[in-house]
Amino acid sequence: MSGNKIGKMFNVTNFGSSHGKALGAVVDGCPANLEISDNDIQIELDKRRPGTSNITSSRQEKDKINILSGLFNGKTDGTPITAVVYNRDMDSSAYENLKNNPRPGHGDYTWKTKYDIYDYRGGGRGSGRTTIGHVIGGAIAKKLLNTMNIKVLSHVTQIGNIKAAKMEINEIEENIDLNTVRCADPCAAQRMEALILHLKESRESVGGIVETIISNVPAGLGEPVFNKLDSDIAHILMGIGSVKGVEIGIGFKAAELKGSQMNDGFYIDNNIIKTRTNNAGGILGGISTGMPIIIRMAVKPTPSISQIQKTVDLKTMKDTKIKIEGRHDPCICPRITTVAKASVSIIIADHLIRAGYIHPCKLK
Amino acid sequence: MSGNKIGKMFNVTNFGSSHGKALGAVVDGCPANLEISDNDIQIELDKRRPGTSNITSSRQEKDKINILSGLFNGKTDGTPITAVVYNRDMDSSAYENLKNNPRPGHGDYTWKTKYDIYDYRGGGRGSGRTTIGHVIGGAIAKKLLNTMNIKVLSHVTQIGNIKAAKMEINEIEENIDLNTVRCADPCAAQRMEALILHLKESRESVGGIVETIISNVPAGLGEPVFNKLDSDIAHILMGIGSVKGVEIGIGFKAAELKGSQMNDGFYIDNNIIKTRTNNAGGILGGISTGMPIIIRMAVKPTPSISQIQKTVDLKTMKDTKIKIEGRHDPCICPRITTVAKASVSIIIADHLIRAGYIHPCKLK
Amino acid sequence: MSGNKIGKMFNVTNFGSSHGKALGAVVDGCPANLEISDNDIQIELDKRRPGTSNITSSRQEKDKINILSGLFNGKTDGTPITAVVYNRDMDSSAYENLKNNPRPGHGDYTWKTKYDIYDYRGGGRGSGRTTIGHVIGGAIAKKLLNTMNIKVLSHVTQIGNIKAAKMEINEIEENIDLNTVRCADPCAAQRMEALILHLKESRESVGGIVETIISNVPAGLGEPVFNKLDSDIAHILMGIGSVKGVEIGIGFKAAELKGSQMNDGFYIDNNIIKTRTNNAGGILGGISTGMPIIIRMAVKPTPSISQIQKTVDLKTMKDTKIKIEGRHDPCICPRITTVAKASVSIIIADHLIRAGYIHPCKLK
Amino acid sequence: MSGNKIGKMFNVTNFGSSHGKALGAVVDGCPANLEISDNDIQIELDKRRPGTSNITSSRQEKDKINILSGLFNGKTDGTPITAVVYNRDMDSSAYENLKNNPRPGHGDYTWKTKYDIYDYRGGGRGSGRTTIGHVIGGAIAKKLLNTMNIKVLSHVTQIGNIKAAKMEINEIEENIDLNTVRCADPCAAQRMEALILHLKESRESVGGIVETIISNVPAGLGEPVFNKLDSDIAHILMGIGSVKGVEIGIGFKAAELKGSQMNDGFYIDNNIIKTRTNNAGGILGGISTGMPIIIRMAVKPTPSISQIQKTVDLKTMKDTKIKIEGRHDPCICPRITTVAKASVSIIIADHLIRAGYIHPCKLK
Repeated sequence: MSGNKIGKMFNVTNFGSSHGKALGAVVDGCPANLEISDNDIQIELDKRRPGTSNITSSRQEKDKINILSGLFNGKTDGTPITAVVYNRDMDSSAYENLKNNPRPGHGDYTWKTKYDIYDYRGGGRGSGRTTIGHVIGGAIAKKLLNTMNIKVLSHVTQIGNIKAAKMEINEIEENIDLNTVRCADPCAAQRMEALILHLKESRESVGGIVETIISNVPAGLGEPVFNKLDSDIAHILMGIGSVKGVEIGIGFKAAELKGSQMNDGFYIDNNIIKTRTNNAGGILGGISTGMPIIIRMAVKPTPSISQIQKTVDLKTMKDTKIKIEGRHDPCICPRITTVAKASVSIIIADHLIRAGYIHPCKLK
Repeated sequence: MSGNKIGKMFNVTNFGSSHGKALGAVVDGCPANLEISDNDIQIELDKRRPGTSNITSSRQEKDKINILSGLFNGKTDGTPITAVVYNRDMDSSAYENLKNNPRPGHGDYTWKTKYDIYDYRGGGRGSGRTTIGHVIGGAIAKKLLNTMNIKVLSHVTQIGNIKAAKMEINEIEENIDLNTVRCADPCAAQRMEALILHLKESRESVGGIVETIISNVPAGLGEPVFNKLDSDIAHILMGIGSVKGVEIGIGFKAAELKGSQMNDGFYIDNNIIKTRTNNAGGILGGISTGMPIIIRMAVKPTPSISQIQKTVDLKTMKDTKIKIEGRHDPCICPRITTVAKASVSIIIADHLIRAGYIHPCKLK
Repeated sequence: MSGNKIGKMFNVTNFGSSHGKALGAVVDGCPANLEISDNDIQIELDKRRPGTSNITSSRQEKDKINILSGLFNGKTDGTPITAVVYNRDMDSSAYENLKNNPRPGHGDYTWKTKYDIYDYRGGGRGSGRTTIGHVIGGAIAKKLLNTMNIKVLSHVTQIGNIKAAKMEINEIEENIDLNTVRCADPCAAQRMEALILHLKESRESVGGIVETIISNVPAGLGEPVFNKLDSDIAHILMGIGSVKGVEIGIGFKAAELKGSQMNDGFYIDNNIIKTRTNNAGGILGGISTGMPIIIRMAVKPTPSISQIQKTVDLKTMKDTKIKIEGRHDPCICPRITTVAKASVSIIIADHLIRAGYIHPCKLK
Repeated sequence: MSGNKIGKMFNVTNFGSSHGKALGAVVDGCPANLEISDNDIQIELDKRRPGTSNITSSRQEKDKINILSGLFNGKTDGTPITAVVYNRDMDSSAYENLKNNPRPGHGDYTWKTKYDIYDYRGGGRGSGRTTIGHVIGGAIAKKLLNTMNIKVLSHVTQIGNIKAAKMEINEIEENIDLNTVRCADPCAAQRMEALILHLKESRESVGGIVETIISNVPAGLGEPVFNKLDSDIAHILMGIGSVKGVEIGIGFKAAELKGSQMNDGFYIDNNIIKTRTNNAGGILGGISTGMPIIIRMAVKPTPSISQIQKTVDLKTMKDTKIKIEGRHDPCICPRITTVAKASVSIIIADHLIRAGYIHPCKLK
């Protein structure tokens, strides 16, 4: 394989699988002198882990963090930080009948085809549990971002056809954690919860849209022409399981606009260059403008639904049917907000070092 | 900077700027024994170059290819292929008044902020002309893809709010080059042309959507978790100037679907595993399924419009206004199809080698 | 930092420190379907670990391997292999007085200068124990090399001024493990052992030369101009702690030769192209010839000697003296053979995949 | 291939071949605001080019530099710098008879084996002329090093068995360019010149040793464990054609020393930490100490000698003989000093940015 590392200066190597011994990450390139505690990472893992509400998978995983290397007296010392989470509540029995019958909408078939040997238990390395590595990397990146007062938030703006109302950034921030769907609009949140529970009962799942906003990013991040900031953000987000689209700023709506509608005019505010509108989403020419960076991603409905579905038998090469058991989220959007936040934090941390905003070796 | 290379095994280093001496690319990692002629590249550059119709910029550039290295007796010999296009029809006069007044919607401001020194003439390295390097790389990649009968096509599906009708792949292929907008639906194409001309006259520009379809890709391309095929495709496409969104398969519509609607059930067709629907867009778990890969990108309206716009003066740090002269495309979508095609061809060529489908050193 | 990964297709990320919780490696890019057991790695770690004879450090570490990811039913499945060794017998007391007094010949001073925060206990990440990651990577690489019948051996050819006699490859192979110094010449070995023990008693250490021979490498490995096979081998070997020189084939003696003496004439043997002499050491133009690859590296005497040495106090910035306690090898050469072998195995495995000799995704 | 790029932040992509249209490099990651003129590069190319004395090849190449991109008003602007040298005095006739008869000591055989298609004219891409790309990259790196007052010099210390006397750095600097062999010791230089001329007449060639010294490097460059400074230096130097060994500081002599002889004790000089001896060669634990970095490389005799040599016919697969015509250097050492200097300058420039000593985007 060999596609398990991301980042150039600040980089994350992700490892592990759903029903293997452990999952985790090696975070390399983090400057020395950054305070990191177990809790800094645990707090983020807790937001990602399943079993915390009636709309998530019932798999019970404490996802307890174990830091194996990279810290000295509670601070980074410039060496690679390895952190591991052991799998505990594995129930592989539900997967035996999937061994040769790939689940529609899942990577079972493609993994099996590519490597011949495929750990089908819990989706193996294709499982959403591999995002534990993202969250570990993101939690460390967040500590770096904190030193520059950069804030990242991620919230659900749509589930099925229920859309949240538009809100100001600080309003969103205050409201995200008030409900289990992580939607800042309380009315929409209530309807989304109801929809998810209803679909769960009818053995269905549903998709949605997750928006991530990064505030206080300095102007100047991003390396044209192949490592533009939007390009690198799209790269990591499109790689999260279930994501089918990524857009920046006004995104796909740009297709319908005229130039005079799209362009964000500049003005001076207290000696700082700003734009009144932010259709660009904080990035021009691939480089951050200083305005908030706004990204949305489309999340497909969880493919694991316990209805009878059409599939094939890879041994006999004949058509067959399948009914998926196991424990699954009827809607992955709420939990994926944590992964989106972690992912863009990794990219921003990397670019802060690449652009000289954070010293590559040590913090003051 | 240092963000000018893409690809791991088959890789492209892009260089040059709009009003500098030349633009081009070094293509490294192409196996030996591939026949390449000047014409193979010229034919693609001709589709990208301006001045070819009344809806493109009137800048007259022949964009004549010069191959400086990497071929021996008309074939690749495994060494880096360098190809260069010299700039000819440069008119930098129109840019003098932009020196300190960044154009809204352009990278002028962010480039200047990042590097202090900025070649503002024609947008410098932020210009769309840098995609000449993409097209060179893509033309060579295309020759590799031909050896496996993989086909890439790129067409305009929407301009403003005019949408093309859905069509079969072979229909699209036959119709793309029949009009100047590169839209396969002749009725929509006619209306798109009219719209673009109308907006050009009213000193406006307009956005659109470009779809790229890759057929005959074998199952097994893509490296989870950070170099999934969709992830790497989104990476390069989001990096093309003016692109604000990328989606795979059903894309953003996935947000509204239920699992049973989204999942593409498998079936056997002549001993090959297929899906009847292709909501996934040919990629599952980040790995190609063998079904056509379908990607759409949102293209914003060209930011250069000759209306008076609000901007700032970077020297005096005061608000001011600007009127952009120069030669610009009222809609970049038709020309960007060639860039999209080239870009995904580079990614597919790279992954064919990474996945062992094409020998890394030599073709038979 | 961010210099903890080596290899392009087959790559190793190394982590951990001498007195931290654990050391280990993530091995990515190993094709699926390779059988690997704990024992395959343990057997190599046992050759590297201290405390096994009277000429090595007395630190008692079992260095027991723990594979955390990457295997399914005893075989690789194409996902990253993470393996960890927990530190057990740490005695950090001997290092307290070194906190501000860098040891001559060690990296204490440079690490402290670069990162400010430095885990001085046992040399921290500068310790020889970090080569556990090399050995883990090398053990997995060895299994890949076995599939092509490629053999790597590493032996001591000189300690101080005692030189081993020249021997044939198969003779060397048979004799390496018959003594604690890993010198194939039994007479020299006896004298080397005596020398090391004598120097140990007189609070001294001694350097030496280690030779590594790789047999059965196919012609065609190596990527000019910056990833030549000798270049990549020198890269990894020069990075092993205490190595001060690397030479290929006849090495530094080439300086004294005339062209007619140096050149290895070609001849045909059973339809295979060979050379009677092998001054080139199996590599021409940076690409393997098919002849055995021969590399020697100069190993300096262990810097930790329990004599009084001149150093400085980093706090007071005044001259001072230091006496190093702790447990150290009087000569690192015997143990470093295992690290050299592992290191070149990683490079060869990587180049076998890069050159198309081993499929990047799966073994048959 | 795909091994034509070196460097992480400051990087060089090398292209071209001996008898192709052109050779050159793309230098990416150079910060903006660095003044560079054609002459800065030309002056270094002139030291490398052949035909300048009676001990070099008689091929007459002006090697005139053409900068195609990356500069604006005489300064870098953060975009990739492409520079090209066109081949002029190509005489491919002498190579026709080598088409199927690989020259002993050359890469002809291995290149042909690896890629099937091989541009045998002048050694193709295996030619020493590819180091034009190194020299271009090195000339730009030198300008960066100048901003920190870092100096690099490279001189010949041995030809055959004639060895130069040991001299102080400033003495060496003053004397290097006083003779055609680039040996700072005038007596040795005279004998070396005589030896080379004598061997040239007798259709022979000879090897030697080239030493490179880097002064004023700040402490703190180098990234353990796989990108140590000595490791990265060895990597690039071992990749220069004809180099068979690289050593740092005391190098291979370390094998014979005891710890008390090898270790460089620290002391304080004007509040700066120094060592009185410099056996380490300016690098400890892979990180620069601030003392001069001293590297020697062993250069083999030029393999092209006009004597009859044993080779094989690749078509008939039978033994045969060969007599090489063409124009060759009887000793490559004098010209290779320029390449060594350029190569280490690239590595130091890269590490200065990686370690935060030079801003990655722009100079003040």
